Amino acid sequence: MAHHDFTPQVYYSAMGSHEPVMHLADGDSVSTTTVDAGGGDASGEQATAGGNPQTGPFFIDGAEPGDTISVTFDKLVPNRKFGFASGAIAPIVLDPEFRPKFEDDRNRLEWEIDLENWTASPVGFDDLPLRNLKLPLDPMVGCFGVAPPRGQAISTATSSTHGGNMDYRRFVKDTTVYFPVFVEGALFHLGDGHALQGDGEIVGTGIEISFDVAFTVHLHKGKTIGWPRAENETHVMAVGNARPLDQALQHATTEMLHLLEQDYDLDARTIHILMGQAVEDEVGNFYDPAFTMVCKMSKDVLASIGAERQPN
Amino acid sequence: MAHHDFTPQVYYSAMGSHEPVMHLADGDSVSTTTVDAGGGDASGEQATAGGNPQTGPFFIDGAEPGDTISVTFDKLVPNRKFGFASGAIAPIVLDPEFRPKFEDDRNRLEWEIDLENWTASPVGFDDLPLRNLKLPLDPMVGCFGVAPPRGQAISTATSSTHGGNMDYRRFVKDTTVYFPVFVEGALFHLGDGHALQGDGEIVGTGIEISFDVAFTVHLHKGKTIGWPRAENETHVMAVGNARPLDQALQHATTEMLHLLEQDYDLDARTIHILMGQAVEDEVGNFYDPAFTMVCKMSKDVLASIGAERQPN
Amino acid sequence: MAHHDFTPQVYYSAMGSHEPVMHLADGDSVSTTTVDAGGGDASGEQATAGGNPQTGPFFIDGAEPGDTISVTFDKLVPNRKFGFASGAIAPIVLDPEFRPKFEDDRNRLEWEIDLENWTASPVGFDDLPLRNLKLPLDPMVGCFGVAPPRGQAISTATSSTHGGNMDYRRFVKDTTVYFPVFVEGALFHLGDGHALQGDGEIVGTGIEISFDVAFTVHLHKGKTIGWPRAENETHVMAVGNARPLDQALQHATTEMLHLLEQDYDLDARTIHILMGQAVEDEVGNFYDPAFTMVCKMSKDVLASIGAERQPN
Amino acid sequence: MAHHDFTPQVYYSAMGSHEPVMHLADGDSVSTTTVDAGGGDASGEQATAGGNPQTGPFFIDGAEPGDTISVTFDKLVPNRKFGFASGAIAPIVLDPEFRPKFEDDRNRLEWEIDLENWTASPVGFDDLPLRNLKLPLDPMVGCFGVAPPRGQAISTATSSTHGGNMDYRRFVKDTTVYFPVFVEGALFHLGDGHALQGDGEIVGTGIEISFDVAFTVHLHKGKTIGWPRAENETHVMAVGNARPLDQALQHATTEMLHLLEQDYDLDARTIHILMGQAVEDEVGNFYDPAFTMVCKMSKDVLASIGAERQPN
Repeated sequence: MAHHDFTPQVYYSAMGSHEPVMHLADGDSVSTTTVDAGGGDASGEQATAGGNPQTGPFFIDGAEPGDTISVTFDKLVPNRKFGFASGAIAPIVLDPEFRPKFEDDRNRLEWEIDLENWTASPVGFDDLPLRNLKLPLDPMVGCFGVAPPRGQAISTATSSTHGGNMDYRRFVKDTTVYFPVFVEGALFHLGDGHALQGDGEIVGTGIEISFDVAFTVHLHKGKTIGWPRAENETHVMAVGNARPLDQALQHATTEMLHLLEQDYDLDARTIHILMGQAVEDEVGNFYDPAFTMVCKMSKDVLASIGAERQPN
Repeated sequence: MAHHDFTPQVYYSAMGSHEPVMHLADGDSVSTTTVDAGGGDASGEQATAGGNPQTGPFFIDGAEPGDTISVTFDKLVPNRKFGFASGAIAPIVLDPEFRPKFEDDRNRLEWEIDLENWTASPVGFDDLPLRNLKLPLDPMVGCFGVAPPRGQAISTATSSTHGGNMDYRRFVKDTTVYFPVFVEGALFHLGDGHALQGDGEIVGTGIEISFDVAFTVHLHKGKTIGWPRAENETHVMAVGNARPLDQALQHATTEMLHLLEQDYDLDARTIHILMGQAVEDEVGNFYDPAFTMVCKMSKDVLASIGAERQPN
Repeated sequence: MAHHDFTPQVYYSAMGSHEPVMHLADGDSVSTTTVDAGGGDASGEQATAGGNPQTGPFFIDGAEPGDTISVTFDKLVPNRKFGFASGAIAPIVLDPEFRPKFEDDRNRLEWEIDLENWTASPVGFDDLPLRNLKLPLDPMVGCFGVAPPRGQAISTATSSTHGGNMDYRRFVKDTTVYFPVFVEGALFHLGDGHALQGDGEIVGTGIEISFDVAFTVHLHKGKTIGWPRAENETHVMAVGNARPLDQALQHATTEMLHLLEQDYDLDARTIHILMGQAVEDEVGNFYDPAFTMVCKMSKDVLASIGAERQPN
Repeated sequence: MAHHDFTPQVYYSAMGSHEPVMHLADGDSVSTTTVDAGGGDASGEQATAGGNPQTGPFFIDGAEPGDTISVTFDKLVPNRKFGFASGAIAPIVLDPEFRPKFEDDRNRLEWEIDLENWTASPVGFDDLPLRNLKLPLDPMVGCFGVAPPRGQAISTATSSTHGGNMDYRRFVKDTTVYFPVFVEGALFHLGDGHALQGDGEIVGTGIEISFDVAFTVHLHKGKTIGWPRAENETHVMAVGNARPLDQALQHATTEMLHLLEQDYDLDARTIHILMGQAVEDEVGNFYDPAFTMVCKMSKDVLASIGAERQPN
């Protein structure tokens, strides 16, 4: 259970079987940094080309195809005072025939990040009601995951069973995310921090910014899952990444069935009836090449029926 | 601003230009009842054929095509001690190749409704962990709306711009829902109460039950909207009903743009940037012939930038 | 097997249980006319409001819910010398972010119909290569069907199990189309003739024109189908109407399974293997509120394995 | 314009920047072989692991990102006497709630390939009408394309802008297919021959078989395209690969707009009006992770308006 410090030198814009930057044992943690979606670092300098460049990959010792790894975010903090975002909702999010009319061309904007007061404010809109907007920071990681199967390397613009660019606003500090292992060592990558983001990432960006990050990894030897899963203080979650939203939600809902059977040892009938009346769904992103939907179940509800988290 | 009591004698399973049961003026309220989705009433008797039978329609005096009416739910209370629900997640919600395996055929179940403790419990599962399940009641109306345009009568199995079978779990007491008016008098119908429901109505039912209902109507003369909208203590909402989920969310997101411009007098740039980082989405139903997605905006956030609800 | 002449006086823009204009017996045929999608008649006068107004409905004597009727088009001929069409592909057919750039605003155009040479030519484009375009006429009916179930009346803008605005270019002369019967008398409606149309009706119109029409009806007593089916000289077909295209094609493919079992008495294994390697698919429309996909099977292939059309 | 013979030693199940097996100049041709989707070669031996293993990649000299290459299939002939196929339509192709019922478990079958009479017949169904089935061979390549952008390696189970597993039945002898170049040398791969296939590849396979193949490559220097395009004796085509079918058809239709502007020097208005009434659409596959739709335009129609193929 060692703690490692890591300073990235190289970044990847596809998740694949790249040379690992470090070996981690079950329970190890790492402090490192991520650049923003455009490749900018803590100083605002261009550290690498844009496109959700990833820090890593980290090799998890002992992880083999068919296993599961988990990553807990111990720290996710913007490490500079400005982020950037798009200023227009993406066409795919709106009715096909609708054409928004803007009176300016401020389609890209800077946000001021106030780490003391933990808020973000758009810069350069003194002429609009927008000048009053201060949103609380809610730092999340947009893109992270493991190397995919079949010798693939998959662009960090998109997502699939291996994770990737899920852009889900609940992937925040103290959340644990589980990934299927497809290659030896799993090869965990992470990047694309958002100071905050609305549901769906409908302008095509959150507030994009570089991060100081710390995370802890665990290896769940012999446990096989189909899609990323997650857990926070209140919920367990299953993630589906696909288009259309329907298929993403089908994957997420089906994976939640497996989660409740595998992790809580529940029978099919209990699971179906429980989910029917108590499941919660959230939209991750409705913009990237694969959309993300998340199916959630309250841990309080699970506890109320005596369902207990199984070891591993 | 009269209050009316109404006892339904006839029910409709399509929303259309049926003979109105009562005329209501702007501000009037009504106390009435709804039967459950299967046509059962407070005594459990079969009052009419199943299929989300509707109480009404109510004629709103002065409402003409191009206007908007709103309905506030003042009371939504189950009026008997049992509801029913399906016991299996619908195939359309799951991966196409996935086949759940049950050890019993309890695909339909009764739920006991405890109005004193405000809980619901599944009946007949003493052999399963399900026996411990007690969910808090959260009564909502699954299907309600107005007569559609073009001389149509649309089945209460589905939904569209006129409302209908939206099965959205936030359509609860103290929520106000707005509908476009397509025919003279608007012709408001309501039915299909659920004691509670999970996101997506993924077993194809909530806990289906008959209700005692009270609601107040208002006429928003000269105001034109495209899709149902809603408001509760914390949020304004825009509703989209279509397949796939993508199209439903496109409708909802586009209608939210219109809502923020029309109801809060905001400019396009403010709206796009605000929605991009602060919008919230919810799944209504992911089962009916048209799915329902809801796009929400926090009223606190709107207040924080000085945006004020416009009259009408 | 009488022949009737019918001159429409009233037109409907929703398919529903309207007062029938005429009773027809099994085997009867009718000569009548249809107005164009905008309500224009043979003289180009506005005979009724636009929106795919329908001639009919015709009551088929003896038809009851659970039966099937069929309609064979004996004659489909434009009855005037000009049609109209849209001049721009609809946004829903193109990539969301794509914005076509036109140098003119000729978004609506007239087509000259030459019945002698059986061609159509766009009018008013002497400045463009388009001036040379002459397409062979291929007259088809865009919108036709029967009254839907559950007391519904469904807009002629859309389609479902009852038929409706399917806009499929193979619904031409000598094609027989089968519809499920949902109400007594079936109530057959037809309208919306196109002089010709591309796959998908991607500009949102074919070449819209009024028609002289003759058709023959048959009653298939006791035969129940799920979706419209059709037959021409070379193929049997099953139609699915829904969004997205995926769902339309799922309906069409599933109905073809039923067709081959019911109409050709084939076993499931033969049907699956045969369809797998020999099925053909076509796009009806990719524009209307419900899209249309058609699943086809060659009658020669069916004959080659000895499969015989069953009576009724 | 040299001709090369190539005997593959290694196969790839992801398209990416693998070591090229041979350099080809503009106009060169190659004779080689492909193994079947399961990795079986001409002798029926397992030459490599399954999953659409690819012959190649071939490096096209001078090809750089932003260019286009084309491949013409000069020969596509099965090189053994049996193929295999699935015997059941895939769940994703059928209505979600539909469950086919088979009386046997022959879910995988062999097809006898008669190269003399140019037919295929299913083996082992003497008890069913299927015993009489003889379909004409129509050999096509299911999976081929170039290395994708961004350092990706994409599984040969799926498809995208780089081509891949498109499973379109018109990719036959004498067809020329165009691909965008994303990496130096383009890196052309091919495999997954089908003796024949129905539209949609709805059982999840064509008749899978190993091939003798010959093809000629050309480099279209400085020409940039967005998606695969194709041309045969009668049509030009644009291909879209995505889910749902809607998105695939949006890509294909948008690419056809570009094709007609770029390759035939037509103006936007002519293109929109022409496509509206004369476009043809086909389903490639409706089974793989990305579906394939093809948008086609008749070369006769283009010639009739004087549109001429531009050089390059």
